[in-house]
Amino acid sequence: MKQIIEIVPNFSEGKSKAIMEEVIAPFKGLGGTKLLNLEMDASYNRSVVTVIGEVDSVVKGIVESAEIAVRLIDMREHKGEHPRMGALDVLPIIPIQGISEEECIELSYEIGEAIFKKTGIPIYFYALSRKRPQCENLPDIRKGEFEGLAEKMQDPFWRADYGDVPHQSAGAIAVGCRKPLIAYNIDTDSPSKKKVLRIARRVRFSGGGYRYIQAGAAKLMDRNICQVTMNLTDYTKTALYQAYEAVKMEACRYGIEITASEIVGLVPKDCLLSSLRYYLNKDDDENLDLKLEEIVELVKKYLKFRDFSVEKIIEYYLD
Amino acid sequence: MKQIIEIVPNFSEGKSKAIMEEVIAPFKGLGGTKLLNLEMDASYNRSVVTVIGEVDSVVKGIVESAEIAVRLIDMREHKGEHPRMGALDVLPIIPIQGISEEECIELSYEIGEAIFKKTGIPIYFYALSRKRPQCENLPDIRKGEFEGLAEKMQDPFWRADYGDVPHQSAGAIAVGCRKPLIAYNIDTDSPSKKKVLRIARRVRFSGGGYRYIQAGAAKLMDRNICQVTMNLTDYTKTALYQAYEAVKMEACRYGIEITASEIVGLVPKDCLLSSLRYYLNKDDDENLDLKLEEIVELVKKYLKFRDFSVEKIIEYYLD
Repeated sequence: MKQIIEIVPNFSEGKSKAIMEEVIAPFKGLGGTKLLNLEMDASYNRSVVTVIGEVDSVVKGIVESAEIAVRLIDMREHKGEHPRMGALDVLPIIPIQGISEEECIELSYEIGEAIFKKTGIPIYFYALSRKRPQCENLPDIRKGEFEGLAEKMQDPFWRADYGDVPHQSAGAIAVGCRKPLIAYNIDTDSPSKKKVLRIARRVRFSGGGYRYIQAGAAKLMDRNICQVTMNLTDYTKTALYQAYEAVKMEACRYGIEITASEIVGLVPKDCLLSSLRYYLNKDDDENLDLKLEEIVELVKKYLKFRDFSVEKIIEYYLD
Repeated sequence: MKQIIEIVPNFSEGKSKAIMEEVIAPFKGLGGTKLLNLEMDASYNRSVVTVIGEVDSVVKGIVESAEIAVRLIDMREHKGEHPRMGALDVLPIIPIQGISEEECIELSYEIGEAIFKKTGIPIYFYALSRKRPQCENLPDIRKGEFEGLAEKMQDPFWRADYGDVPHQSAGAIAVGCRKPLIAYNIDTDSPSKKKVLRIARRVRFSGGGYRYIQAGAAKLMDRNICQVTMNLTDYTKTALYQAYEAVKMEACRYGIEITASEIVGLVPKDCLLSSLRYYLNKDDDENLDLKLEEIVELVKKYLKFRDFSVEKIIEYYLD
């Protein structure tokens, strides 16, 4: 079996399509990788790139892409609403197939070292690749942002894993292996952000809810309704169906109903199957032999997925 | 407002009613305290005592009770199924009314010191009163039990907060302030412990479930059904209704239904009101002006409480 990983590099450029086309060029026409998505956000001034592929090809691509980003993105002139510390700001690496979490952590160290050697940009290993407890959470590393980095890196507590001072125009990069994170939003029929936030608070970990749910409320202005917007940080433990049913249960208090739900980005087949087992009255360890097309129909039925198709399932891109 | 606390001392004697009557005698006829419950378990060879009352009276009572326990309970001869390290094994102290958590932690230090000075029994401060991270969880402190205590206390990592060596017949005591813990069981109509354990796993924190739920499965032999047996470790964050509805939702997968639920021990009124607000479609901060009798009827209706009456609500014992 081929070793397949996903990377989701975030770059500090969300306005210039021309620049981002150059930055992602190494992933195009490179055998063994698929560029799945480029999502540019102008107000964040930030782009999120999703690439999946064989280990060697993806590594080659991201090192080249980082070199291009250093040349084209100058943090000294960068403004945007999203916190950031580098031109290539963060590089999450996710094991997909034929590679263990441990191997993927090792791989993140190789990638970090390779980027540092090519570009001189300091590297922080974060998430599962952290070498110190304070480096587990990206927001802690990034606090102070690009502008505060030179001072922060002088503090021994916040030294980087590679490099002693920030790159003058490209800052620093957080590199780390993490579990697949599912971005999952549930549409309600309520225009009240206050009520939907209360639902989110009851469902999320910080409010006493499910262990692996982060949640907030977001208003969709065009439709005048609010969403519970969530991250499932370990779908193998807290499943989609639990998020869906918990939101439905909490919404009940306010007479609010769920009208639809959506996956942002990609989702592993396993994540969908574990929730379909619930609705099909199967046990967690029972086999479900379904084609991708069948899975799509079933999640639309049971979880009211909208805007969903086989192209959103990671396995669609694998052999 | 009077300062009211609850204490739940656990003594290593569960067979002799005569001994336990002497141990709890200080709480009887003592103004300002109410002895709410004495629960003796012969196979555990352990008794759980629940006392509620004004701070000064409760402190006076427990110090006397500890002195009696040292005289009557000899750990060198003690056998029982429950882990234990002392004659008075653990002393949880819970703030109920007019006293903050911080004040209650301070109080636990005073009580620990008083018991040590009167009896010479070493004291470990645990739970919210822990002075070192390794002392947060009682099972960690108690590991090795009475028989292993002398050796354990020589390890600097496991020195006691008061005392250098175990009391020869009474071992050591864990003393600490903790939040009110709700023991809550849900009866299912299923005789399958395997299935009910799977429900419990999905609901509990360790399996990806709610943050403040600990859960397992227990078979009720006389009725040939299984319970999901739970501790809610912070009911202000994870509410009863969430535990109930989550179990109902997970049980659905197996065609299992909830037939009843029960509170073991006492429950604060607040805990019931916060769940009734959910079922009465009120918001978390809305006032609910209900008499204790009305609360009893409503929780029987919505949460299928069995064997429940005003005597199980802590406020019943307060002015």
